[in-house]
Amino acid sequence: MAGFLDAEKLLSTRAKSLNPSAIREIFKYTGVNGIISLAGGYPEPGLFPLDKIRQAVNSAIDKYGPKMMQYSPTQGVPEFLEYLRWFMREKEGCHHCDEESVMVVSASQQALSLLSQVLIDPGDIIIVEEPTYVGGLVAFRSMQARFVGVPMDENGMDMDILEQKLKKHRAKGDPVKAIYTIPTFQNPAGYMMSVERRRRLVELAKEYNVLVIEDDPYGYLVYEGERPPTIKSFDDASTVIYLSTYSKTLVPGFRLGFAVGHPEVIRKMIVAKQAADLCTAAFVQYATLEYMNLGFFEEHLKTLIESYGAKMRVMLDALQEHFGDVEGVKWSVPKGGFFIWMELPEWVDTYEMFRYAVDAGVVYVYGSAFYPYPELGKRNTLRLNFSLPTADDIKEGIRRLRLAYDKYREDRAM
Amino acid sequence: MAGFLDAEKLLSTRAKSLNPSAIREIFKYTGVNGIISLAGGYPEPGLFPLDKIRQAVNSAIDKYGPKMMQYSPTQGVPEFLEYLRWFMREKEGCHHCDEESVMVVSASQQALSLLSQVLIDPGDIIIVEEPTYVGGLVAFRSMQARFVGVPMDENGMDMDILEQKLKKHRAKGDPVKAIYTIPTFQNPAGYMMSVERRRRLVELAKEYNVLVIEDDPYGYLVYEGERPPTIKSFDDASTVIYLSTYSKTLVPGFRLGFAVGHPEVIRKMIVAKQAADLCTAAFVQYATLEYMNLGFFEEHLKTLIESYGAKMRVMLDALQEHFGDVEGVKWSVPKGGFFIWMELPEWVDTYEMFRYAVDAGVVYVYGSAFYPYPELGKRNTLRLNFSLPTADDIKEGIRRLRLAYDKYREDRAM
Repeated sequence: MAGFLDAEKLLSTRAKSLNPSAIREIFKYTGVNGIISLAGGYPEPGLFPLDKIRQAVNSAIDKYGPKMMQYSPTQGVPEFLEYLRWFMREKEGCHHCDEESVMVVSASQQALSLLSQVLIDPGDIIIVEEPTYVGGLVAFRSMQARFVGVPMDENGMDMDILEQKLKKHRAKGDPVKAIYTIPTFQNPAGYMMSVERRRRLVELAKEYNVLVIEDDPYGYLVYEGERPPTIKSFDDASTVIYLSTYSKTLVPGFRLGFAVGHPEVIRKMIVAKQAADLCTAAFVQYATLEYMNLGFFEEHLKTLIESYGAKMRVMLDALQEHFGDVEGVKWSVPKGGFFIWMELPEWVDTYEMFRYAVDAGVVYVYGSAFYPYPELGKRNTLRLNFSLPTADDIKEGIRRLRLAYDKYREDRAM
Repeated sequence: MAGFLDAEKLLSTRAKSLNPSAIREIFKYTGVNGIISLAGGYPEPGLFPLDKIRQAVNSAIDKYGPKMMQYSPTQGVPEFLEYLRWFMREKEGCHHCDEESVMVVSASQQALSLLSQVLIDPGDIIIVEEPTYVGGLVAFRSMQARFVGVPMDENGMDMDILEQKLKKHRAKGDPVKAIYTIPTFQNPAGYMMSVERRRRLVELAKEYNVLVIEDDPYGYLVYEGERPPTIKSFDDASTVIYLSTYSKTLVPGFRLGFAVGHPEVIRKMIVAKQAADLCTAAFVQYATLEYMNLGFFEEHLKTLIESYGAKMRVMLDALQEHFGDVEGVKWSVPKGGFFIWMELPEWVDTYEMFRYAVDAGVVYVYGSAFYPYPELGKRNTLRLNFSLPTADDIKEGIRRLRLAYDKYREDRAM
């Protein structure tokens, strides 16, 4: 009798490079007694509209019955697609928004995965903001993309540098497939791309025939000022794939989002989705549609904006209180979203400082994790989340962060 | 101003080979006035336990609250994983069924997709039954697998031929990664692999260090006799990855299933799932768990078995009535599942005959679609589904099939 299967021998080259994300180690401190986590990016569960969702689900079962339970078209259930097309046209000023341009996905991560499959041959280039969303990097990397980073300031991606890089890679004949951006309340930086840059990004993408992937999970969570126009609203050439998700504005536990863009790209994504999971649960599509139809969404957004906005201001105040006096420290001042980005003095390595933070009873995500090549990232940066912790935990967490910083500085000086 | 994006230029090599499945054309006849479809593989929506699902969902919201709505571990929510481990150990006699061996998936298609990603480098070999499930072929093909087919008889895959092929490819040094089988009420053939062959398959897989992918969507839909032991129950070396789904026994609209197997393979599948969709909806995991806890599952299975069993017998009787006198025609006589496989005389090409069927008002899936290389498949075969149509439609559909066959034969003779 042969022994235990030697699985190692059966794995693909891709599988060998598939490793759990490095920031997973941070999350083992989540829920540990006494440790305050400013690390995650989860919505606050206390804000989930349990009763309204219950009402929507029950009403949808009455209304749609077995259709909710059956297999459904890979592109999405017709009634929900119709709503999405209306929404994108009427609310988002989307130019080309016909039956072939919109598809449902099992939340944005799936859209990123499908896009990776249909765009990337090994070695192809994806341009990303530095820093950027880890899940985007994970998806692109799974198809062996190469990354080109473009730095940001508080107005988003630097368009001059973007243009230089596009020019350079065109000259070299490199296959640049897409520019990936989270323009509004960026994860992790909290920055907002200016309207002027949004326009320019579309023009550059058209000029260089590159897809723009506009990832917009936080666009409706505006705590100060107005929601900016999407990049997609300036797109008259179907050069932008717009991704939206209900994970932050409704619940992540439904796994529901959508993608809007060039029909040929959407068509390929649909075929890739057929192989990936056949279809997104009709149950959650109809339940979400009913939630919208019952008029619960707008009302819920107001609650979220009020609550998250208050916590954001608490964090900004705490940072001012505990770090206002430290030279060389700065942080982003977002007007929405979930995150604040902090830059400490140049000599700080937030990966090293992490164990001081744990000792002080607080955790964050070190900034290098958000760079396509972490070893080249700014090591003096970190991301703070204010959506999940309570206001009191935010205050105490930032106080502890200062203690950790002081202890770390002290030890470094020795 | 540049023109419309040239998306064609941006697509990956993989995307160019991603085309909608050929059998999609068949499904445009579904729901067409007067045409009876024996083509699909959907469960009967009239059998969906709407009220019990409603009850389970409401009870789960009471019990699990915000946990149902939040992001959840990629592997699955802990309570559901615990249930699955218990189920596999106690009900299925699974040998190695610890915390690292089980994961939740967004139904079996996702498991097939993740397995493809972690096993297949372009050109690697997957051994499949001939004929086999189209969704399996689609997933394996999306990672550019090569296929080796093994013929079946009513007792499943031919183990002597399997052994020859394993030997031959080992001698050539070809990378054979997995043997894909649907042993119980096979799709499309309705065949059942014998217990003896199940044992032998495990031994062969161990000897040749090849993974067995046991896809078992119909295993609980037994209309005559007993449920056979799974291949997994004979597996003492973690050489079998067992895939199960709730799409046929509960509802497809939840998109829920699970995979059980070698910890190293499961671990890689979890990492691949992180890139693919982060996690399966906690909402449907908790709702399904509650459905089980309320004891609804066993009772519902009885209803399904009674209803589908009756329809299977109607189809078998109708085949006897309308084709019993035609020389060279035979069909599988399954004891469960959703499908009957029909072989017509050698001169028949069921792809050609398809338009005669449409004219007569009935559709089926031509058998070549279920072969890894359709041009090499048995062209005189077709698949009939009895789960979706009513008993009356089954009778009338088979009557029409005979009319189509007669007209086709007549035209061929001219």
